[in-house]
Amino acid sequence: MSGQISRTPMRAGAMRGCAVLTVVLLAAPPLRAAIVAGDAEGAVAPHGLNPFVLAGIAVIWLVAKICGEIFERLGQPAVLGELLGGIVLGNLALAGWSVAEPLKTDVVIAALAEIGVIILLFEVGLESNLKEMLEVGWSSLLVATVGVIAPFFLGWGVAAWFIPGEARLAHIFIGATLCATSVGITARVLKDLGRLKAREARIILGAAVIDDVLGLLILAVVTGAIGAAQTGGDLSTWGIIWIACKALLFLFGAMVVGHLLVPRLLGGIGRFESRGVLLALSLAFCFLLAWLARQVGLAEIVGAFAAGLLLDEVHFEKVPKHEKRDLEELLRPVSGLLAPIFFVLMGIKVDLRAFARPEVLGFALLLTVAAIAGKQLCSLGVVERGLNRVAIGFGMIPRGEVGLIFAGIGATLMLPDAQGLRQPVINASIFSAVVIMVIITTLATPPALKWALARNIQAK
Amino acid sequence: MSGQISRTPMRAGAMRGCAVLTVVLLAAPPLRAAIVAGDAEGAVAPHGLNPFVLAGIAVIWLVAKICGEIFERLGQPAVLGELLGGIVLGNLALAGWSVAEPLKTDVVIAALAEIGVIILLFEVGLESNLKEMLEVGWSSLLVATVGVIAPFFLGWGVAAWFIPGEARLAHIFIGATLCATSVGITARVLKDLGRLKAREARIILGAAVIDDVLGLLILAVVTGAIGAAQTGGDLSTWGIIWIACKALLFLFGAMVVGHLLVPRLLGGIGRFESRGVLLALSLAFCFLLAWLARQVGLAEIVGAFAAGLLLDEVHFEKVPKHEKRDLEELLRPVSGLLAPIFFVLMGIKVDLRAFARPEVLGFALLLTVAAIAGKQLCSLGVVERGLNRVAIGFGMIPRGEVGLIFAGIGATLMLPDAQGLRQPVINASIFSAVVIMVIITTLATPPALKWALARNIQAK
Repeated sequence: MSGQISRTPMRAGAMRGCAVLTVVLLAAPPLRAAIVAGDAEGAVAPHGLNPFVLAGIAVIWLVAKICGEIFERLGQPAVLGELLGGIVLGNLALAGWSVAEPLKTDVVIAALAEIGVIILLFEVGLESNLKEMLEVGWSSLLVATVGVIAPFFLGWGVAAWFIPGEARLAHIFIGATLCATSVGITARVLKDLGRLKAREARIILGAAVIDDVLGLLILAVVTGAIGAAQTGGDLSTWGIIWIACKALLFLFGAMVVGHLLVPRLLGGIGRFESRGVLLALSLAFCFLLAWLARQVGLAEIVGAFAAGLLLDEVHFEKVPKHEKRDLEELLRPVSGLLAPIFFVLMGIKVDLRAFARPEVLGFALLLTVAAIAGKQLCSLGVVERGLNRVAIGFGMIPRGEVGLIFAGIGATLMLPDAQGLRQPVINASIFSAVVIMVIITTLATPPALKWALARNIQAK
Repeated sequence: MSGQISRTPMRAGAMRGCAVLTVVLLAAPPLRAAIVAGDAEGAVAPHGLNPFVLAGIAVIWLVAKICGEIFERLGQPAVLGELLGGIVLGNLALAGWSVAEPLKTDVVIAALAEIGVIILLFEVGLESNLKEMLEVGWSSLLVATVGVIAPFFLGWGVAAWFIPGEARLAHIFIGATLCATSVGITARVLKDLGRLKAREARIILGAAVIDDVLGLLILAVVTGAIGAAQTGGDLSTWGIIWIACKALLFLFGAMVVGHLLVPRLLGGIGRFESRGVLLALSLAFCFLLAWLARQVGLAEIVGAFAAGLLLDEVHFEKVPKHEKRDLEELLRPVSGLLAPIFFVLMGIKVDLRAFARPEVLGFALLLTVAAIAGKQLCSLGVVERGLNRVAIGFGMIPRGEVGLIFAGIGATLMLPDAQGLRQPVINASIFSAVVIMVIITTLATPPALKWALARNIQAK
């Protein structure tokens, strides 16, 4: 009964309030109509999401996970399955089924893919440790340096010889796509063979991390040069040096400023009580640095990588160990959803019809040869004696993610051609050739590496 | 030395391959130029991501987490902080700082917000249990039914009386935004007071879940009616009945078909070895059902909610307990990143200048009164005696997320006005009024509920 009694005063109160309001509102009748006409411009929300996008993302995830799983079971990296699944999906139109065509041009899916890459590079930065990188020793440093410079110039040379009609910056960009080593597949093979602790393995893994940084520097310089070419024609040697300095300044500036600021920011985050805070604020930091990198003319992923390095370094010093694992663990579901969108989309954009033209196929094979040969020169950088240099050279072959990311960035950068029309630096044919190079180098590594390591054991 | 020896044959092989390739390629020199000219149309990737978007998302996250934290410490739900932070951010232009203006119209941010809502409703579906819902008893069912119908008609009536110039469907839509109870804040207050196990608490929580389903049904009907009105003018009673049947058919059809299919699909997922599979394929399922809902003329969130209900139900029966927790745990970082984008964006879109016009403020207050009064009628649905009916009525007051989501959907739906121009169903003024209603009902609940529960204790 208490409920019955207690409801009465509340109800009366509400009635009274209602009555007062009614009086107020009726006193101003001409205003009533105004709210109707008030917002002729009034479209509150742009409906950003075409429902097609939802189905598209769902299909991309299905393709990514099913093909990724198949390739993992075959002892290949999942990313290769995502890429090949994307190629099949994107070329269904050749079989007369054009259902996947709108995926190629949708702005939202492209944006999700780019956000996925930014988060992926942030993760790579988190996993790379600045101090460990500086401690890997001369062999790793030399192997990495040769392994970036040799394929860069080989790729540049091949492109300049084979497609002389393209802009010089396009040749340089193609060289850049050959730089970075994707060490995941090598690490997996070494782990499967129980050789992860061998000196060769440590040299390869150390060199791959340094490769990432050097590759990002080259990307920064090339992107900056293209940005300069877009506005003011050709670029002088001094201009290139200035862009290189800017890239180095950005990375080291971010490191120094971040080194001072991030511990305090993280201390602040530690005082937050809500659980989603660590992830959201870390990613906000990553996105801000990515945006800042773009503002100074570098690629977004350079900023994302720097953010990861910074948070990693600080975590190791200031924050309890479990928090760091926490951030990487919280990031994994997010990057596990977004990164495959990028790789499937890269596959979707490969135009198989391009390979009907023998010169595209030829260029793809030549690029692959340059990529493999360039990394074999790495073994010259091994200063110690008695090591399995062939295995080290083979271990550095796979290009994978980073090469694709560079190619994807190149496809979005524009340069004026001879007629002054804006053309993408990496056109559809070159893009397809780069993807083929990535696929072949990644597929070739496991058997080659196993063979080289087996020979070594026999020799010993 | 073995490295030195073993490298030689490989190098020779590479050289030979290179030479063969060179011959092949030089034999076809005229083809070489083709690759250059090949892709005049060749823009491979649309650059979906304006770098501004990255900075925008970062700022949204900063605002969401800082304001959310402040409100949680004040004993208020974080979503309220996100909303108010968004209102401040969106109205910085009033202070002459127009930095946040592009956020209001960016397609990518709008799409991320909508994806966030879809994932949020998927999560709500996962957390609601179909069986528990059917077992809560008559009180919950009656409270929920009255609590949906009363505010719906009150809201419709208020809108029809106050803004008679708007379309009838707009009035109905405004009624729909008043339906759903956002029970989070009530649950929090009850938990803080140690009353979560009380009979009143169980009635409120049960009714809120049923409210969600009934509210989604009303939304489905209203959205369908608007879709019909867009194409063929006014809607007959039979048309409305058909849409209601379609919505029910979709929900129950999804349940029945899903009940048969999902266990097998989940069995398949269980056989996958990669870790990201459960999350990606569950979300793919959610997105596909959301897309399907849209295809049959319902809102995407209806499909997302159904997907959550289905996966939840099946999980409980077929999949080990830890896997279910796993999915919800994996979802949390994702929804924790995307859902706040929606709420901050809703705040950003509130135009404070609208409240300079007394009729908008008046309409907001009148809507609030309708929202509160409508839910007080709930207590009539309590069939048991001796319960604290005032507390039950107060506990049902907050609108929160779902009301905002409905308003956001209404803002994207278009109806032709008297002159035949397409206008959003919920224009900017009405949208602002709905947001104010959500804020007031949410702010008013904790003190009102505490007061009602304290009275109850004294009365006993």
